[in-house]
Amino acid sequence: MAKNKQYVEKITAMEDDFAQWYTDVVKQAELVDYGNVRGTMIIKPYGFAIWENIRDELDKKFKETGHSNVYFPLFIPESMLQKEKDHIEGFAPEVAWVTHGGEEELTERICVRPTSEVLFGEYYSKNIHSYRDLPKLYNQWSNVVRWEKTTRPFLRSLEFLWQEGHTSHATREDAEAETKQMFEIYADICENYLAFPVLRGKKTESEKFAGADYTLTIESLMHDGKALQSGTSHYLGTGFAEAFDINFLDENGEQKPVHQTSWGMSTRIMGALIMVHGDNRGLVIPPRIAPTQAMIVPVAQHKEGVLDKAYDLRDRLQNLVRVDIDGSDKKPGWKFNEYEMKGIPVRIEMGPKDIEKDQVVLVRRDTGDKEFVPLAELEERLPALLEEVQRNLYDQAQEHLEETTTTAVNMDEFKQALEESPGFIKAMWCGDEACEEKIKEETSATSRCIPFEQEKVSDTCVCCGREAKEMVYWARAY
Amino acid sequence: MAKNKQYVEKITAMEDDFAQWYTDVVKQAELVDYGNVRGTMIIKPYGFAIWENIRDELDKKFKETGHSNVYFPLFIPESMLQKEKDHIEGFAPEVAWVTHGGEEELTERICVRPTSEVLFGEYYSKNIHSYRDLPKLYNQWSNVVRWEKTTRPFLRSLEFLWQEGHTSHATREDAEAETKQMFEIYADICENYLAFPVLRGKKTESEKFAGADYTLTIESLMHDGKALQSGTSHYLGTGFAEAFDINFLDENGEQKPVHQTSWGMSTRIMGALIMVHGDNRGLVIPPRIAPTQAMIVPVAQHKEGVLDKAYDLRDRLQNLVRVDIDGSDKKPGWKFNEYEMKGIPVRIEMGPKDIEKDQVVLVRRDTGDKEFVPLAELEERLPALLEEVQRNLYDQAQEHLEETTTTAVNMDEFKQALEESPGFIKAMWCGDEACEEKIKEETSATSRCIPFEQEKVSDTCVCCGREAKEMVYWARAY
Ligand SMILES: [Zn+2]
Ligand SMILES: [Zn+2]
Repeated sequence: MAKNKQYVEKITAMEDDFAQWYTDVVKQAELVDYGNVRGTMIIKPYGFAIWENIRDELDKKFKETGHSNVYFPLFIPESMLQKEKDHIEGFAPEVAWVTHGGEEELTERICVRPTSEVLFGEYYSKNIHSYRDLPKLYNQWSNVVRWEKTTRPFLRSLEFLWQEGHTSHATREDAEAETKQMFEIYADICENYLAFPVLRGKKTESEKFAGADYTLTIESLMHDGKALQSGTSHYLGTGFAEAFDINFLDENGEQKPVHQTSWGMSTRIMGALIMVHGDNRGLVIPPRIAPTQAMIVPVAQHKEGVLDKAYDLRDRLQNLVRVDIDGSDKKPGWKFNEYEMKGIPVRIEMGPKDIEKDQVVLVRRDTGDKEFVPLAELEERLPALLEEVQRNLYDQAQEHLEETTTTAVNMDEFKQALEESPGFIKAMWCGDEACEEKIKEETSATSRCIPFEQEKVSDTCVCCGREAKEMVYWARAY
Repeated sequence: MAKNKQYVEKITAMEDDFAQWYTDVVKQAELVDYGNVRGTMIIKPYGFAIWENIRDELDKKFKETGHSNVYFPLFIPESMLQKEKDHIEGFAPEVAWVTHGGEEELTERICVRPTSEVLFGEYYSKNIHSYRDLPKLYNQWSNVVRWEKTTRPFLRSLEFLWQEGHTSHATREDAEAETKQMFEIYADICENYLAFPVLRGKKTESEKFAGADYTLTIESLMHDGKALQSGTSHYLGTGFAEAFDINFLDENGEQKPVHQTSWGMSTRIMGALIMVHGDNRGLVIPPRIAPTQAMIVPVAQHKEGVLDKAYDLRDRLQNLVRVDIDGSDKKPGWKFNEYEMKGIPVRIEMGPKDIEKDQVVLVRRDTGDKEFVPLAELEERLPALLEEVQRNLYDQAQEHLEETTTTAVNMDEFKQALEESPGFIKAMWCGDEACEEKIKEETSATSRCIPFEQEKVSDTCVCCGREAKEMVYWARAY
């Protein structure tokens, strides 16, 4: 086990230095590498395979709900970006500007899209005329650029991958229903695929998307007690419609502006995946999105028949689960560590003794539990075990969320909670942005969401003591 | 039929003005719209759905041949782009430069990737150390930017979507085999999915990729007799390996540079699809990549039971083929034209008389042929008919290619061939770039490829009359 230990020591213990643990895992599990331009990232094969699985599940759900994929340009002329006032104020400080094409200086600067509301706005204004043209339900998978000052792989990078949905509707009701529907799809992906619970709610005015009427958000909890915004869905109202003249004739021949939504989930969610489930041995990937759900590791593979049997097993299982085999000449101990590091949900060991007994050993990544399973029962047991791992990961994350969620009725309690049990804090708020600002300054915690499920934990604002309007979830956040 | 006629008149006849026909089809079939920055395009739902099908087939083949998807950054520092001399010379005139991030001017200009050889080169130099690290078989799906002066949707656009494969190998043989393998995958996609033949060969030195040892290309023929380069696969040799220090220790402990390949297929292929199969009624999409393979159009749908039966038919067929239905209150004639315009391979008509007779009418997009099919036989007939359409489209394209391919032994014949039978010209070449240049100047035809299957059509160079080295396919090209 000495070798074993040494290997795991490549990862800093999360209790010692969580940020370093994160960086170590990202690097050791071969998810990303750093790009040459500061703050950019190279998503390596394993990282990209996980992202592809998340993307494919999302894409399926978007199509099932009637959305079409499209692709809009990377470039936005400066004058167009400026059409919606709140939007440009929100994004101008963090866009990259193209000023030269080939040898020529451009007459107008062009920005690399930080998001594409204005492009879709311009398009919709040309393509929507009548209520018959509505709704328009578009989504695009793309890269976007935000010139962030401090960056970390997945969590905050100069360029990231995402999908951005942009829809136009005839009525406020329709657009709000869409906003909610897409938000629930994000929550579903987190809960049922990525295996962690989310808090559902609305962003405060100061935290909402630049240009939106309101923003719905799902917030999840990392191992270190910090929150991570995991997906947002915006009801844009008629702001962009007015800025871009997106009007239609309704059934009575009346001219009206469309109601719009936009919604996005990005490679940021990979950060959540790592920080919710990972441990000191590395990644832990929930089976439903794991590129490899089960890894076969032959034991004593130099013995006659072992490798053949192991490959036979792979062939036998490969239409059942996403299975792989490591038949390389590396030591089993090295392989055990490697695939634990990569978070592969189940390891299947098979050695001469197992072959003799017509059995394999299944080892769970989440608990380390081993079980001997007769070969004849494997087709039944393996998928069931994967589901158990999936469920257990969710339950653990749920438990952590519950354990660390506290209540505060005044600032002393608030600060104490942050120290003693980092996580979400439920506290009442008067609705004044000054209080939100003050809490942020004094504690670095921000308002995460105004949950749909309200509780009255006290009568007065946790900050100013005036009458409270609503309960807010607060946390330090990524 | 008056309405019918009027509708089709939205499309200029290809005999009258081929370029305008192309633009009309692209617009009327709702494939793309123009972006706001000159030369950029918005790929609309129908255009993107076709591209998605091509992408998915390619992606499947890449994975089957052991490639992993990755994602590298959009941005390349200027100094890095300059490392490989031929490469920078080829691309510098057509890159977009980012000079500002947010409010700040950058200390070094950053280019928006026109292709990513240098990024992969830098990465491989850090990640390849031993023969055990080889081969590295990476692919990425991404957007790239080339600051082109004249642009046309799909064919030449400032930004386009593509995949770019980048691989590193221990030996020249391995890398050349990869170059050939990926090239054959492109040919397979064209021949067996997009339903058109391609000429296979090598590019001349002056037409090869900037930085490659050689470039393999597949060339296809458009309706107007022009060629379109449809996919290229480059053997890069050790040029980038030397520029980026990508070395490995071989099995004998010797330090060696890797041998590399790169290969790409882009949204340009959409242009080929349009210009090979389209006609004066619009697009014609080969069944294997058509987003909708069969469109049900109810006839006299106000009559009792018709719409219900038509929807039942849709439900019944939807696990068999990609089927859709237009149950809107538009006239059948409008619908016929619309789906012909969109190139949907088969239309299924169903009216009261058909219901009475337990039959439907199948109408082929490629030939316009109608047939009455008993409902009980539809599950068998429809997929067979789709295959017939697929095959016929290929055969037609093959016939066009053969009919227009001519032979020239001197420049008079060459020019005459271009006038009388625009298409590929087989002619001998001495190997001198001066002759290639002269032919281009005098005829606007370029060398398309030096085919693997050589024929000796004469002894002397078509241009200079000196001894010929090889036979070349020439054509005017997109
Ligand atoms: Zn207050
Ligand atoms: Zn010559």
